[in-house]
Amino acid sequence: MAEYTVRFDSHPEPIDVPAGALLVEAARQGGVEIRQPCGGQGRCGRCAVRIESGQVRRRSVLRLSKADIEAGYALACQTVVEGDVSVVVPPPEQIQRRLTTDHIAPEALVPDGYDPEQVQTVRRVVLQLTPPSMDDQTDDWGRLETALRREADIHRLQKSLEQIRKLGPVLRSSDWNIALTYDTGREKNGTAQLIRVQPASQAEEEALCGLAVDVGTTTVTVWLVDLLTGTVMYQGSEYNQQISRGEDVISRIIFASKNDGGVELRDLVLQTINDLVEAACSKTGISAKAIVKATVSGNSTMMHLLLGIPPESIRLEPFITPINNLPLLRASDVGITMNSDGVVDPLPGVASYVGADITAGVLASDLRSSPATTLFIDVGTNGEIVLGSSEWLATCACSAGPAFEGAGVLHGMRADTGAIEEVWIDGTTFEPTSRVIGNVAPRGICGSGLISLVAEMFITGILDKGGHINQTLPTPRVRRTLHGAEYVVAWAAETESGEDIVITRVDIDNLLRAKAAIYAGFNVLADGVGIELESAEQVLIGGSFGKYINIEKAIDIGLLPDIPWEQFEFLGNTSVRGAYLALLDREARAEIAEIASSMTYIELSADNTFYEAFTSALFLPHTDLSRFPSVAAAMT
Amino acid sequence: MAEYTVRFDSHPEPIDVPAGALLVEAARQGGVEIRQPCGGQGRCGRCAVRIESGQVRRRSVLRLSKADIEAGYALACQTVVEGDVSVVVPPPEQIQRRLTTDHIAPEALVPDGYDPEQVQTVRRVVLQLTPPSMDDQTDDWGRLETALRREADIHRLQKSLEQIRKLGPVLRSSDWNIALTYDTGREKNGTAQLIRVQPASQAEEEALCGLAVDVGTTTVTVWLVDLLTGTVMYQGSEYNQQISRGEDVISRIIFASKNDGGVELRDLVLQTINDLVEAACSKTGISAKAIVKATVSGNSTMMHLLLGIPPESIRLEPFITPINNLPLLRASDVGITMNSDGVVDPLPGVASYVGADITAGVLASDLRSSPATTLFIDVGTNGEIVLGSSEWLATCACSAGPAFEGAGVLHGMRADTGAIEEVWIDGTTFEPTSRVIGNVAPRGICGSGLISLVAEMFITGILDKGGHINQTLPTPRVRRTLHGAEYVVAWAAETESGEDIVITRVDIDNLLRAKAAIYAGFNVLADGVGIELESAEQVLIGGSFGKYINIEKAIDIGLLPDIPWEQFEFLGNTSVRGAYLALLDREARAEIAEIASSMTYIELSADNTFYEAFTSALFLPHTDLSRFPSVAAAMT
Repeated sequence: MAEYTVRFDSHPEPIDVPAGALLVEAARQGGVEIRQPCGGQGRCGRCAVRIESGQVRRRSVLRLSKADIEAGYALACQTVVEGDVSVVVPPPEQIQRRLTTDHIAPEALVPDGYDPEQVQTVRRVVLQLTPPSMDDQTDDWGRLETALRREADIHRLQKSLEQIRKLGPVLRSSDWNIALTYDTGREKNGTAQLIRVQPASQAEEEALCGLAVDVGTTTVTVWLVDLLTGTVMYQGSEYNQQISRGEDVISRIIFASKNDGGVELRDLVLQTINDLVEAACSKTGISAKAIVKATVSGNSTMMHLLLGIPPESIRLEPFITPINNLPLLRASDVGITMNSDGVVDPLPGVASYVGADITAGVLASDLRSSPATTLFIDVGTNGEIVLGSSEWLATCACSAGPAFEGAGVLHGMRADTGAIEEVWIDGTTFEPTSRVIGNVAPRGICGSGLISLVAEMFITGILDKGGHINQTLPTPRVRRTLHGAEYVVAWAAETESGEDIVITRVDIDNLLRAKAAIYAGFNVLADGVGIELESAEQVLIGGSFGKYINIEKAIDIGLLPDIPWEQFEFLGNTSVRGAYLALLDREARAEIAEIASSMTYIELSADNTFYEAFTSALFLPHTDLSRFPSVAAAMT
Repeated sequence: MAEYTVRFDSHPEPIDVPAGALLVEAARQGGVEIRQPCGGQGRCGRCAVRIESGQVRRRSVLRLSKADIEAGYALACQTVVEGDVSVVVPPPEQIQRRLTTDHIAPEALVPDGYDPEQVQTVRRVVLQLTPPSMDDQTDDWGRLETALRREADIHRLQKSLEQIRKLGPVLRSSDWNIALTYDTGREKNGTAQLIRVQPASQAEEEALCGLAVDVGTTTVTVWLVDLLTGTVMYQGSEYNQQISRGEDVISRIIFASKNDGGVELRDLVLQTINDLVEAACSKTGISAKAIVKATVSGNSTMMHLLLGIPPESIRLEPFITPINNLPLLRASDVGITMNSDGVVDPLPGVASYVGADITAGVLASDLRSSPATTLFIDVGTNGEIVLGSSEWLATCACSAGPAFEGAGVLHGMRADTGAIEEVWIDGTTFEPTSRVIGNVAPRGICGSGLISLVAEMFITGILDKGGHINQTLPTPRVRRTLHGAEYVVAWAAETESGEDIVITRVDIDNLLRAKAAIYAGFNVLADGVGIELESAEQVLIGGSFGKYINIEKAIDIGLLPDIPWEQFEFLGNTSVRGAYLALLDREARAEIAEIASSMTYIELSADNTFYEAFTSALFLPHTDLSRFPSVAAAMT
């Protein structure tokens, strides 16, 4: 058998291994330290190394993005040596950072072949008007509009009284040489919305910027975008300040219905957005006046709260959204810190629980570019699911409850510093290893940590398929309390609070109900369109929560359908990316409208097959084990 | 020769007169007192009597409206007996009132054949929506818009964020039975502007009203209109409170340019309008909330000041209007007291000195309904002139200066109580008789009084054709002062101030310049379109000032062209009537837009024939007496 030489940058000596050896085997042979928290299962992504040169074969690329692979990353535990190889072992912090930041570099965000001239939603044209004279008595606006018709084929310019008031002095102070900024993102037939008229000389020195805003229930994300090039100048996220008034959309709606709750929630989310805009401006040196458009995405409740529209009916049967298709709005009416004559484009939603975050997500996911059947999921408080292809789209929302966001779970918490986000359990000792966000003493367990924990408990036999804790196991970590059995994830001595972090039987029941609701949603949706769920050729996972899910473990517990790992792709925050595309590109904006109007919405609570599907999914991974062959195989 | 019997109601005995006798002759014969301040020239209208029965022939109907004639009125000094006649002599107050009020009864204002169903600009439709259910998840606005498309063929409903916020609660509190009010006055292709959504039961009990507003430099007029029937419920006029900041548009513009002058002027005119609206509401019991639309007319400066648009460029060469065609505005943006979601429709103007008052005037005058060449004039501070027919329209504005509004004349004043509004001078004694508004001691002379005075002075030889006062006449009323010659119109003992009211040489010069500017405007306009001015088949006089002009005297001084009296028609306030028609009727609104866009504007100061025409018109009546044959005849 051929032998190859493996060189690690951290090690002076080359290591000879037989063809077909794994990189971790080479490392072990040479005494090179590579961490493998998941025990070499290719699940944690912590053993990622960078191949500098040489031939390797990646057996699995789970936890690696396309950009990672292009950059040469490979999982040491899953990578087969097929030639002489040079390998760089990155320091652990670097891996940590790679795993937790959005992988997409700002410049990589600009769509391929993006041509502002062709598709820009916001345009700024410079017009040299012929000054009026005694022989040419056209009024100021008529003069402007005639030039605009000639130069830019705009036949109808919509303008506010406030804007009408400003023109005369600008024309005369600029020697009739002006820059006119307008939006045509949602208009057809040569209609435009006026944003701004300014002296051409002033415009030359000024940026033309926009905001892509994703208003999440938990996190608000703002991108500051250079509209002339499409470049993302700043990306920022903050907790939605509304959190202090309720963790999930339901409690927010209830809060909004009382007294001036709606006003308070509106102010809080505006404060969150405006803090981010201020940070963007101060970081980039851009003036808020140069920000002329904001495209806003978010779930239906967040959109209504941001715009001050009473959201009560979203919560009450039959769960009706006041408005899915909002008109283009004035910045001054919305309250975002930007040019007050700027425009705000709230993206369209489909239903009370399938909002603009999903239509934007479908756009960003590129789901519609392929005829392949694709499942797009965005799991947060609710699991929103889209099944479709270039030909058709169907969607539903599963009210999973907030268990995966850490609520309803004794030691649950949001994915914040101190949260256990991944757990591995030794099948012999039942001792856990875990990864904590921020590498600090753990404070609790976040959603991805809970999925990971339940999966590991199930795989190692701590849980049976009904979700019961096996109290006969020889480990002190399984114990019985007044409220039932529990498993100790971290001993008091290791935790921030000095108390044990545990998962209880009640927690597990809540998590099973949440995952069952989502999986049942997949099933009803697939049945509704007449396909087998497992025949989906691609699974795209959006949302910031999704980014941290370990696919294998999510399949292990029956949250995700049992589809080969390589068919899954993590897309990160597709909502803000969709907003960004719709901000830049008229065609993308038209497509999002098309997505919203063509998507068939299935209301699960009106579907009488849902309850049965839900009940069947309350087991680990499912009553019908034949639907989870890979899990069945792992259990034997 | 046949004899006829004339019976006067105020006289017990019948009076026999020969056929062909005038009514005044019959009265004199029987000793019946009928006042004839103009000496039986048919010019003052004071001898109007009502023919109860019998055959008469009216030699002249000057000073009588069509409605007067229909009501049986005839001028005693101009009416020939052609049968046995019964005559009622109205008390003097009644004649006074008839002469000074607008003759049009509110019910006569509704256009013939007006069919709200067909042409209404504002509509209120009742929609019974199917409530949503688990099987019908359409959002609130989608549900509303679908019903509106089906029931009213409206395909695009424009709405504000404020309106979007209100729908949900209204739908649910009304059992999905709503009344929707929208405006389509300026929209085509099934587009509408949402005004209001309310429970259908509430709408049933509520009026649907609009305002027709004419913002004059001196007077603001507001009509409250029932939009369901077209009925005018209230007509009110008040002085524009801006007067205290300048009498004419030029001084207003100057005031607006300084500090916060524009804001102050805007507040003042809004205050004027809103006081009138309040009076209308309290008089009719209509709530301001029920007023959902206002159509506004006025000259370009007034429109700009009302809307807070800086008007400076109107005053400065080349005299450019910031905007002639304003979009439909929200009531809340404009500031008129009415439903804040209502709409304000500012009518279109043509140029800085040919504003919406003129386009509205042309609409109201019905000028475009006949192929006959018609001259439409509106004389105020400026004389705005339109020459046209159903086929074409041309317009110009003569900056006459404010002489006819009483400014620049020593004892000039506005047409207010105490103003001498008509004068007759005895050709032998040179003693004047005059009519004073309000029948009080005179305070000064208003525009119509000045025209009348100059004409009488000219006809009686006190003035020569150059406007010089003949100081050789045997009357103490002509006298010489340090500043030149003057004529005493009222002695100190008769006046309110206890001082003589006079007209001076300087006053006359100013008046000649004003009338010359207007007459030159007529000429340049007629030349511009290639017709003889005197070939105009009809002269329509709009504006509240025009209402009181004595045509004969205006011709005598060369202000109006020498066209037979019966071809003149006084139309009163055509600006507010045009606004009223455009408020009611989509077709009228479309016509006004057509009028504004099709009217050829001739800027006089850019026309090199104007100065010559002006100089020729500085004489009484004109250098070329052949253009004034009726005046030439009277002078011989």
